[in-house]
Amino acid sequence: MVSFTLDARAGRARAGRLQTPHGLVLTPVFMPVGTAGAVKAVTRDHLAQVGAQIVLANTYHLMLRPGDTVVRDLGGLHEFTGWSGPFLTDSGGFQVWSLTALRRLDEEGVRFKSHLDGSSHLLSPERSVEVQQNLGADVAMAFDECPPWPATKEVVAAATDRTTRWAERCRRAHSRSDQALFGIVQGGVHEDLRRKSASEIAGLDFPGLAIGGVSVGEPKEDRLRVLDWLDPVLPDDKPRYLMGVGTPEDLLDGVARGIDMFDCVLPTRNARNGQLFTRFGRMSLRNARFARDPLPPDPDCPCPTCRSASRAYLRHLHLSGEVTGMVLATVHNLFFYLDMMRRMRQHIVLGRFEEFRRETLGSLQAQAAEGDAS
Amino acid sequence: MVSFTLDARAGRARAGRLQTPHGLVLTPVFMPVGTAGAVKAVTRDHLAQVGAQIVLANTYHLMLRPGDTVVRDLGGLHEFTGWSGPFLTDSGGFQVWSLTALRRLDEEGVRFKSHLDGSSHLLSPERSVEVQQNLGADVAMAFDECPPWPATKEVVAAATDRTTRWAERCRRAHSRSDQALFGIVQGGVHEDLRRKSASEIAGLDFPGLAIGGVSVGEPKEDRLRVLDWLDPVLPDDKPRYLMGVGTPEDLLDGVARGIDMFDCVLPTRNARNGQLFTRFGRMSLRNARFARDPLPPDPDCPCPTCRSASRAYLRHLHLSGEVTGMVLATVHNLFFYLDMMRRMRQHIVLGRFEEFRRETLGSLQAQAAEGDAS
Repeated sequence: MVSFTLDARAGRARAGRLQTPHGLVLTPVFMPVGTAGAVKAVTRDHLAQVGAQIVLANTYHLMLRPGDTVVRDLGGLHEFTGWSGPFLTDSGGFQVWSLTALRRLDEEGVRFKSHLDGSSHLLSPERSVEVQQNLGADVAMAFDECPPWPATKEVVAAATDRTTRWAERCRRAHSRSDQALFGIVQGGVHEDLRRKSASEIAGLDFPGLAIGGVSVGEPKEDRLRVLDWLDPVLPDDKPRYLMGVGTPEDLLDGVARGIDMFDCVLPTRNARNGQLFTRFGRMSLRNARFARDPLPPDPDCPCPTCRSASRAYLRHLHLSGEVTGMVLATVHNLFFYLDMMRRMRQHIVLGRFEEFRRETLGSLQAQAAEGDAS
Repeated sequence: MVSFTLDARAGRARAGRLQTPHGLVLTPVFMPVGTAGAVKAVTRDHLAQVGAQIVLANTYHLMLRPGDTVVRDLGGLHEFTGWSGPFLTDSGGFQVWSLTALRRLDEEGVRFKSHLDGSSHLLSPERSVEVQQNLGADVAMAFDECPPWPATKEVVAAATDRTTRWAERCRRAHSRSDQALFGIVQGGVHEDLRRKSASEIAGLDFPGLAIGGVSVGEPKEDRLRVLDWLDPVLPDDKPRYLMGVGTPEDLLDGVARGIDMFDCVLPTRNARNGQLFTRFGRMSLRNARFARDPLPPDPDCPCPTCRSASRAYLRHLHLSGEVTGMVLATVHNLFFYLDMMRRMRQHIVLGRFEEFRRETLGSLQAQAAEGDAS
């Protein structure tokens, strides 16, 4: 029930379509992060307004609260949250590493204490798949071991091997036919490990493949090199998901290297912290220059926020700690991200992606050069 | 440019229309509170969705941040906030008393230190009018002295007399022809003082009259008695505004006693604290009974929240501290309040207000009797 087809290419960039039980996703796509079953500060109506196609939800958060069986009994994520479009859930592994203090990893899985109430839990390949089947997203992710950054090559190699063994266990545990299970490639910044992992994970015939172990602190050049190594190794006919990435520039660079799917908290988190993304770079609402600025964040942006609010007003709401300001900023940032993805796709179809990428990067950096980013 | 006409009566209840430079307001009306120029947690699109007609903004907050001259230079409140419907501003006096620790009152006005940065400010009749003219709301309020509760009759009498002297100074200071200035009646819970104040303030020929010194801690019975005393004394052809009130029950009782306008933070503040207003009483989202409840807050409510979110989901968002939950709860509570006002008006026009009031009060109390309110 989940399938992927390619519509067009421009260089290594791809325009595709991911068919899911809850609707079509045109790729390349950015997935807003809905950690606890809501994209922070916005409603499903806002998501429709900004053109969201698919939402990511976090297995770790939802298994702890309200609990995956609660979500299952209430009809799954779609019914529970009211977002009737496609969902993707991560495996929970990354949050166990970033959010919990006490944890123990062995071949079975990871034992950890909840950051909410200290209660003890196990996440294993089987348990992660069980939770994700209870949540009922259209796409689930295999449970992997993401080594820390930096780590010795031995540590990365061991995590990469375990990721393959865990991927096999996830495959065996997964049974929902209305849900796709994607595999995750590890291997750090080592070409041999990345190629080996890609070949092993691809050999398990997942309907989609993700690149993990990125956006963990590694230099950007290393990440781009990883994408270059993986491009010829990953199956051409399957969607490629670069996890946890990234900035607008990262998305342009990722699509140029054949990536189809992205997710990141940047547009939503930065919105709540008063930072707006625009075609001309980032705009900090704390900047005093906006105190009497009657222009919208981007005068050419057609989003609901830019059609109703000035920089001065948004700055005032941010400095006043108004929730309304978080809502308006989040709507704008999500629109900016999703609109950029739509434009990328258009330019791939038109065969002019590289020109679009260069122009957009130039525009994004123009204001940074003037010292406006902050 | 601001005028008031009465369309219908049912007993002492009145259905009217307040014409303002920024549009028509059908009364009785509830005004959502937009303290700092935004109704907390919602956008102007939400306000349109729930049918808000007029928004209250706080002079005290806006004079301190972003500053009334900033708002003026950006085109006034309507242009600054993007809410193009009518606005009412309060005088700032009430917030000086409730939010500042260091203050000194004399005949000139109140000197106080900002709760934001400790800076020193003066609010006087002339300064309050100046600030409100800079903010540019459709309706401004006279600067009054609201005595504390409880207070001796001597203290209340002195504050009532000063309120009359200040009202005269406000009248003289006010010059914007596109803004109405309403007077405020004080007098505590003393019949003679209330009658004297009403007669003096009405004698100044304000286009609207407010009842202040309520919702400050006095027993509800005292407040209702004040409304009964004032009804025959207040000019029949002018709008009557009961400041800072109240609960759904208070609105029903107020309209029954001839009140046309209300404002209160209850629907918005309680929403952020996880309390929903429904036809069947209040609903606390913290209540464990809602953990797996798939029904919307009110299955018969047509608001955007009840059309998309279950009690279980709203409870989960509230417990998770999600901003999205505050947005959804605020939208529902405002819809409930505004819809109740619309129904009151309909039933006044139909001549069936008293039946509506009794039925609605009965329904509101039904759940409370079952012990569900909390």
